[in-house]
Amino acid sequence: MKLSPLQKARYQYVPKLPGMLRGGISEICVNEGEATKSVADQEKIKALFPNTYGKKEITFQKGKNTAVAKKQVVGVILSGGQAPGGHNVICGLYDALKATNKDNVLYGFKGGPSGLVEDDFVVFDDEFINRFRNTGGFDIIGSGRTKLETEEQFKIATEVCKKHGITAIVIIGGDDSNTNAAVLAEYFAAHKTGVSVIGCPKTIDGDLKNDDIEISFGFDTATKTYSELIGNIERDCNSAKKYWHFVKVMGRSASHVALECALETQPNICLISEEVAAKKMSLSQIANDIADSVCARAQKGWNFGVAIIPEGVVEFVPEFSKLIAEINDLLAGNKADAFNKLANWNEKYAFIEKGLSKESMQVFAILPQSIQQQLFLERDPHGNVQVSLIESEKLFSALVKDVLAERKKKGLYNGKFSPLHHFFGYEGRCAFPSNFDADYCYSLGYNACMLIQYGYNGYLSKVSNLSKPAENWVAGGMPITKMMNIERRHGEDKPVIRKALVELDGAPFKFFEAHRKEWSENTCYLYPGAIQYYGPTEVCDVITRTLALEKGLVEE
Amino acid sequence: MKLSPLQKARYQYVPKLPGMLRGGISEICVNEGEATKSVADQEKIKALFPNTYGKKEITFQKGKNTAVAKKQVVGVILSGGQAPGGHNVICGLYDALKATNKDNVLYGFKGGPSGLVEDDFVVFDDEFINRFRNTGGFDIIGSGRTKLETEEQFKIATEVCKKHGITAIVIIGGDDSNTNAAVLAEYFAAHKTGVSVIGCPKTIDGDLKNDDIEISFGFDTATKTYSELIGNIERDCNSAKKYWHFVKVMGRSASHVALECALETQPNICLISEEVAAKKMSLSQIANDIADSVCARAQKGWNFGVAIIPEGVVEFVPEFSKLIAEINDLLAGNKADAFNKLANWNEKYAFIEKGLSKESMQVFAILPQSIQQQLFLERDPHGNVQVSLIESEKLFSALVKDVLAERKKKGLYNGKFSPLHHFFGYEGRCAFPSNFDADYCYSLGYNACMLIQYGYNGYLSKVSNLSKPAENWVAGGMPITKMMNIERRHGEDKPVIRKALVELDGAPFKFFEAHRKEWSENTCYLYPGAIQYYGPTEVCDVITRTLALEKGLVEE
Repeated sequence: MKLSPLQKARYQYVPKLPGMLRGGISEICVNEGEATKSVADQEKIKALFPNTYGKKEITFQKGKNTAVAKKQVVGVILSGGQAPGGHNVICGLYDALKATNKDNVLYGFKGGPSGLVEDDFVVFDDEFINRFRNTGGFDIIGSGRTKLETEEQFKIATEVCKKHGITAIVIIGGDDSNTNAAVLAEYFAAHKTGVSVIGCPKTIDGDLKNDDIEISFGFDTATKTYSELIGNIERDCNSAKKYWHFVKVMGRSASHVALECALETQPNICLISEEVAAKKMSLSQIANDIADSVCARAQKGWNFGVAIIPEGVVEFVPEFSKLIAEINDLLAGNKADAFNKLANWNEKYAFIEKGLSKESMQVFAILPQSIQQQLFLERDPHGNVQVSLIESEKLFSALVKDVLAERKKKGLYNGKFSPLHHFFGYEGRCAFPSNFDADYCYSLGYNACMLIQYGYNGYLSKVSNLSKPAENWVAGGMPITKMMNIERRHGEDKPVIRKALVELDGAPFKFFEAHRKEWSENTCYLYPGAIQYYGPTEVCDVITRTLALEKGLVEE
Repeated sequence: MKLSPLQKARYQYVPKLPGMLRGGISEICVNEGEATKSVADQEKIKALFPNTYGKKEITFQKGKNTAVAKKQVVGVILSGGQAPGGHNVICGLYDALKATNKDNVLYGFKGGPSGLVEDDFVVFDDEFINRFRNTGGFDIIGSGRTKLETEEQFKIATEVCKKHGITAIVIIGGDDSNTNAAVLAEYFAAHKTGVSVIGCPKTIDGDLKNDDIEISFGFDTATKTYSELIGNIERDCNSAKKYWHFVKVMGRSASHVALECALETQPNICLISEEVAAKKMSLSQIANDIADSVCARAQKGWNFGVAIIPEGVVEFVPEFSKLIAEINDLLAGNKADAFNKLANWNEKYAFIEKGLSKESMQVFAILPQSIQQQLFLERDPHGNVQVSLIESEKLFSALVKDVLAERKKKGLYNGKFSPLHHFFGYEGRCAFPSNFDADYCYSLGYNACMLIQYGYNGYLSKVSNLSKPAENWVAGGMPITKMMNIERRHGEDKPVIRKALVELDGAPFKFFEAHRKEWSENTCYLYPGAIQYYGPTEVCDVITRTLALEKGLVEE
């Protein structure tokens, strides 16, 4: 098999473990902390998790390993979208298992959680594992989006575990997957299966974050990759001086990715969905804000700029959500038939005009025609508008163009506006993990093995103090139930891990807010460049700006 | 001014000069070679360049500097699209000028060649230059696309040079800009201005390449950046196993960029425009070829893949070029009025059907509607179709979809086809130059100064033997006229540097051709990862696969 030079070189990289885990397996002991309770709805969560609720937080420390020496057979699952570092979680887990007892076995269930219930697996050995050290992607065993949540699935999972003598399952996933990990852990405990479940916090979206999770893995690498590209585009834009670049970045609901990229690159504009929702902004308001930057810059002779658009922002615009709901309603069931029979767009437009409320029609009317048509013509199998397909970067540039045309008529603007569009998502989810993600993930996996060895169940592998050098990282575990509250999902009350949105009173947003006017009118671009895996530590071991700001580590 | 960690670190990088230039200015002497003649049309070129034709190739070597010690005042110009390393050409030129004589002066003409005729400039000093060492972009003085080609412009340029006492102009540009540099050099010589002109070979497209130019600068960094992204997408695609990614890469006419990216990443498909033209391929043929890969992979259960599409490929499809010509004709002048008055697309379609030849209508009919409409609705100020706006990545995925639907009906295909689309161009033109480009560009600039000092005019700064370590690079100069031939441009015979297209019997294409069937049916992805500026030399000093193959350096 042919390999790239970097891939060969990365095989040699030795991930940094937290200091307390560096003494070897026999030198790791447990320090039990306080009993925990869930962040909200304690009584309800407790009732739902009678066997796993209220357990103690633990940290590891240097000292004699007191775990019962028992052979472990562990199954690992990658769940959901790719994130750089997933391979290293598995490598860390594997190395710790083998270091503990060479007879320990690691199964990898293939294609996501469905691999467990379909009993589709590989058994790892050194040769297999070594091919994936410090590499990106989830191709080691594949991933999938099947949810493990039904009693039926749990029964099958129990059977599969019994069949292979599996003693623990490690689930690498986002908020939903870790919620399901907790439910599975409770099921295993209630049914006295002897199988424990450990979760690991993964998502490039950055929305699995709370008092116990400083950062989800993959966020660092993905945002550095997008920031590399945005910085390159900024430099291009500042050289050619003739385009406005509208850059959409991945992240369906929370805007952590957009915000981190903005902090790393200082673009002229960055929309934050949470702010749009909080201020109940309209499309026109947003377009006006962007146009203000375009005009201010045009006055200085700068007919160029960069705007970052979070993927899911349109869903946070109240009037737009309302419009979508009305369209879904207008074409629900067989009502779509009448619409589909209309001969051309003019007739369809008349139909729409009659069907929508006056307010929604006003919103609809300002959309560019390509998006109007998309809303009506490309619907999912249930007849609903596919919001995720909306090219919001083109939507906003079209709206801005209209605003500028108005201002030009009034003599308020006399520049040129040539927009270009980009979407960055797939480019970052499978990059070679940064040193931070390589170290963090390897530690999460190694640490998960220690939690298993010490018999913990329903715990999240927790590595914290991440803004410090790895030597000072703190490894341990936290009951997943501690992060839960009750939320209404699909009409039912469910215990779930709270999704972390961008906090408008948090330090990262506050920093952005304090600087954005300056960035919008001037050219303050920062060019982060490509992720470096070698070289000066200040270049190749940099934490995210978000984490640095949250920890109060940013001067000025 | 705030800077990224990498930018700060790159300031410290010391570019590697060719060994023969390392002894200091006083230790560089000239070795004159043979008199040259143009690659074709010798008599015509000689007649057009009586003062600069037929000069000798020169190389520098270690030895006593015999140049006349004369104060130099040099003006430098960045011409055309951005390419990583442009700043370093200027830094190398500046450093050599100052090392020769601290009273030497470097002017930077702003915004491209127009800066010279508009007398719009900056004068460089250490502080200014130091801010741009080893950085990407052309923002140091900006670039532009104005061509210096008229007698009128040359007269003004002469005046500007006289005014500032300028002794030489260095033009950093592509094939057209270097052609114009030769014409300007001839003008300056004929008019005994005493000003010399030196060209430097820049373009990420890679099409300024010949016996004397092994590679144009920027190609290395840009293709490595695109290959990073394509590799990441391949890894994502091989993890998620559910999408076909159609990736368009920049490069309007030649397919060097696409080919280099394919050699670096081994995708399932890569179209090469030159092959499409040579084989007179139709859109359907191309779509069929891609569909063959989709089907072969689907049979193995792999409903995913990656296809690279060169930006300009549709212009190389004969039937498509004919269609475009007919559309331009159909709507020429006031013929467009009748078309524009038609009420809706159905009526317009009927108009088109009547106006196009039967063959072109067949081509038009298979296009997706969005592209049909684009061809007719988005025309340039002259009423012509804007071919560059055609989203060819979407065009081909749509055509492939149709082919697959046909095959499905016949029971020949039973997979899923979910295409996603990307375009990479602006992301790579202003990346921090790779060590190769940083070294090569600095050497080109340094070398340009030596050519100036020794009084050469109409020369290209030539650095060769580039597949070897920089120590062994060969620095010298070549008369630009040597690379010229006569071509018909805009109805006139013009002396121009021949644009280098991908040679179908060249080693890079031959290698691709020999492997592409294997790549198309199997999963042979290579993941190059981000450009590394530090670390093991086999990671951070890698030449392009194209150059390695051309030099016979690739085993297997």
